[in-house]
Amino acid sequence: MNLEYFLDKEKGKQVVLVQGLGFVGSVMSLVVANALKGDYAVIGVDQDTDAGRKTVDLLNSGTFPIVADDPKIKEYFDAACKRGNFFATVDPVAYTAADIIIVDINLDVRKTSDDAYALTDYSVNLNPFIAAMKTIGNHCKPDALVLVETTVPPGTCRNIVAPTIKAALEERGLPVDQIRIGHSYERVMPGPDYVDSIQNYYRVYSGIDEASADAVEAFLKTIIRVDEYPLTRLGNTNATEMAKVLENSYRAMNIAFAVEWSRMAEEAGVDLYEIVHAIRHRPTHKNLMLPGIGVGGYCLTKDPLLASWARTNLIGGKERLAQSEKAVSINDQMPRYAYEFLEKRYSKPLEDVKILLLGVSYRGDVGDTRFSPVEFFCRCLLHAKAAISTHDPYVPVWSELDIRPHQQLSEALRDQPDIAVISAGHRIYGKEETIDALLECKPMWIYDTIGLLSIKQINKLQQKHKVIILGRGDL
Amino acid sequence: MNLEYFLDKEKGKQVVLVQGLGFVGSVMSLVVANALKGDYAVIGVDQDTDAGRKTVDLLNSGTFPIVADDPKIKEYFDAACKRGNFFATVDPVAYTAADIIIVDINLDVRKTSDDAYALTDYSVNLNPFIAAMKTIGNHCKPDALVLVETTVPPGTCRNIVAPTIKAALEERGLPVDQIRIGHSYERVMPGPDYVDSIQNYYRVYSGIDEASADAVEAFLKTIIRVDEYPLTRLGNTNATEMAKVLENSYRAMNIAFAVEWSRMAEEAGVDLYEIVHAIRHRPTHKNLMLPGIGVGGYCLTKDPLLASWARTNLIGGKERLAQSEKAVSINDQMPRYAYEFLEKRYSKPLEDVKILLLGVSYRGDVGDTRFSPVEFFCRCLLHAKAAISTHDPYVPVWSELDIRPHQQLSEALRDQPDIAVISAGHRIYGKEETIDALLECKPMWIYDTIGLLSIKQINKLQQKHKVIILGRGDL
Repeated sequence: MNLEYFLDKEKGKQVVLVQGLGFVGSVMSLVVANALKGDYAVIGVDQDTDAGRKTVDLLNSGTFPIVADDPKIKEYFDAACKRGNFFATVDPVAYTAADIIIVDINLDVRKTSDDAYALTDYSVNLNPFIAAMKTIGNHCKPDALVLVETTVPPGTCRNIVAPTIKAALEERGLPVDQIRIGHSYERVMPGPDYVDSIQNYYRVYSGIDEASADAVEAFLKTIIRVDEYPLTRLGNTNATEMAKVLENSYRAMNIAFAVEWSRMAEEAGVDLYEIVHAIRHRPTHKNLMLPGIGVGGYCLTKDPLLASWARTNLIGGKERLAQSEKAVSINDQMPRYAYEFLEKRYSKPLEDVKILLLGVSYRGDVGDTRFSPVEFFCRCLLHAKAAISTHDPYVPVWSELDIRPHQQLSEALRDQPDIAVISAGHRIYGKEETIDALLECKPMWIYDTIGLLSIKQINKLQQKHKVIILGRGDL
Repeated sequence: MNLEYFLDKEKGKQVVLVQGLGFVGSVMSLVVANALKGDYAVIGVDQDTDAGRKTVDLLNSGTFPIVADDPKIKEYFDAACKRGNFFATVDPVAYTAADIIIVDINLDVRKTSDDAYALTDYSVNLNPFIAAMKTIGNHCKPDALVLVETTVPPGTCRNIVAPTIKAALEERGLPVDQIRIGHSYERVMPGPDYVDSIQNYYRVYSGIDEASADAVEAFLKTIIRVDEYPLTRLGNTNATEMAKVLENSYRAMNIAFAVEWSRMAEEAGVDLYEIVHAIRHRPTHKNLMLPGIGVGGYCLTKDPLLASWARTNLIGGKERLAQSEKAVSINDQMPRYAYEFLEKRYSKPLEDVKILLLGVSYRGDVGDTRFSPVEFFCRCLLHAKAAISTHDPYVPVWSELDIRPHQQLSEALRDQPDIAVISAGHRIYGKEETIDALLECKPMWIYDTIGLLSIKQINKLQQKHKVIILGRGDL
């Protein structure tokens, strides 16, 4: 099948194009192809690179490119394949057919840090994003709706997206006053609720003008269960762009807060996890975060910086967001601190010590290793020449370090590690069979970096092993 | 009635002494006198000063010394008076009779700030607290339970309370191994749920040893509805002391976070209140705070500093809590910024401009002016020689500035202010009759410093008045 054939077959339907087929765009395509109301023809467009062409080929041959725990992914993908209303391509001609273009591409921050992982500087390179907007402007219908879902620096729709697309339209001799541009950020959460994190979740949206906001609203109502999760319209695109980065900065900042207090807890001989759980009884304090090995993923590690950068570069503010920048810097240093915590307590140098990392992804029960703190923790151990092995049932290949983690715990433990580090919150590590398996090993150190073990489990393990816990005084 | 007579009359009952009859101790006395289980003889002890003697006299003559919105205060006080199981005194002899001593005295931080209200330094003077502990040790039974509710620097029970009391017992030739010392911080909230904030709320507790923790637990179970609000025991007194200051630091920090973003919102021409309300739909972001005129009250303004001070002075840490200190400094500057926001926008110098402050207390619907940000805001206006008038139905006398606020809004508006500032969140200011009353005034400026007005109300007021809102771009 080619694009022309697809469009001919789907004639009469509204065409929705999703730009970018990564963690967000690929699942967004499925949700639109399985819209709650109406019937769209959906075209997923990825970059004309090796990786992009591979993704497109996989999709068109009936294989979804992301492994995920959510059964709805398969269900929605199979339904779209059966219905035939989804097609993937790298051909920019696709834009000419689109009534709605959803922007789900990346916008990266480049950080520079010192040897201690403390942030020293960072930069935002808008050029790839601007190029993508030019591609849209060079091909799109003059009355298309462009819906930006990418997390962008506040001010982007107004100062970058609109002028870039309008300039391209003008160059093509087309009217510039019919294009509609809106912003509505996703809150996609890879994992067991992957699809629901789009379809069954609150949305905030806006447009560069009233007509744009209305068009975004009309579209979102067809794909999101708005009766249960009502939409919120904000006054302008600056507001929604800011809301997104504020959300993630709030999380990042609350983690940085917990980090500082966990250092004090260690000094005071108390268990910060116990304190946080006690305080969370209060509804006003439910969002209090836990400390741990670090912050990972694509969002919390960079969004506060996007915001701060935008303040002086797009908004016209004179100051950066000092607290949010500081939060990123503190969080970036967590893996190093987690390493030093172990190094200080372990009686011998770590060279040749057999260390098993239990979990390498940045979140529990998800196989997502982007900016995983375990990577930085592991780099510290490798630098100390420790003998590393890994276990992660969600990560068959840890591409960042080119390691293939053990998939079975029994296999991982067969090698009798000197230290087992609980480094990701996969539920399996808290199960009694895991505790029992650990108790069958020769005496070793168990290092819980995320407060996963219960007091009861700690007591049990201490009968044979030495247990240390980040964010706690000595046991 | 005197103490001797009271004790004789109440013979056979457990005697609970409450040390300190301020915002916490006075209501704590009522809760204990009206215990859910058991029947206590309660003695409230205040300092032998003019203020202390006045409080004691009021209480013993049947007048509760604090005006509060909570009908339970009167109900509980009347019941205790009728039952006759409460007596107030300044006589330290009272300690000799106490089985349980509850410490509800203040422990203050002295701040120094620059002209912009930014924190430059601070100190914690433990001497008055130590003196109070000495008073206990000099008179108490050797097997009393001392329950500290005061917010103290973490490490205080272990490093100050226990050694001070034990040294005093030793000097009296008494055994030192029978005294029990515990810590369980209150979460008292003056206002309509004053009593419930003790009796119907979660409690965290600990003891310097197992017997102490058990004794605290047994006592708390008789005064708190633990079936609905279960108690949480933490591992040691450092942990509960830290939990309290962490709770308040968390709030202070989240406000400081909102402050920084509200500056960016003003620059970006967006409404931060709108953004915060949109984000709060997410359960993970419910605790996101609002910006405003400032942070007041006795706790959030100092507790982060108590914690930070303790880290280097009592816990043995090498660093302060930099983020928490920074949060206090940012929050302290909010009133000055709120003043500058007005000054920049108002076309003329503020000298002789008639400015009406609507609300002077630091919280909505409560008459508590301790460290109210409105005080600092007002000082800025007075410095600019503005002509200030005030309205606050909860504050008959604003003692910090020696001002008697108008009690009736109609009276306050009769003088036709040039600027009306919504400076406290009393519900009355959001009522339609207030909006109507404002619309009857001659054209003026209305300055909402706390995002109290709805969009609809703003639109209505703008028909006649100029409205400006802190944390929003220009309207």
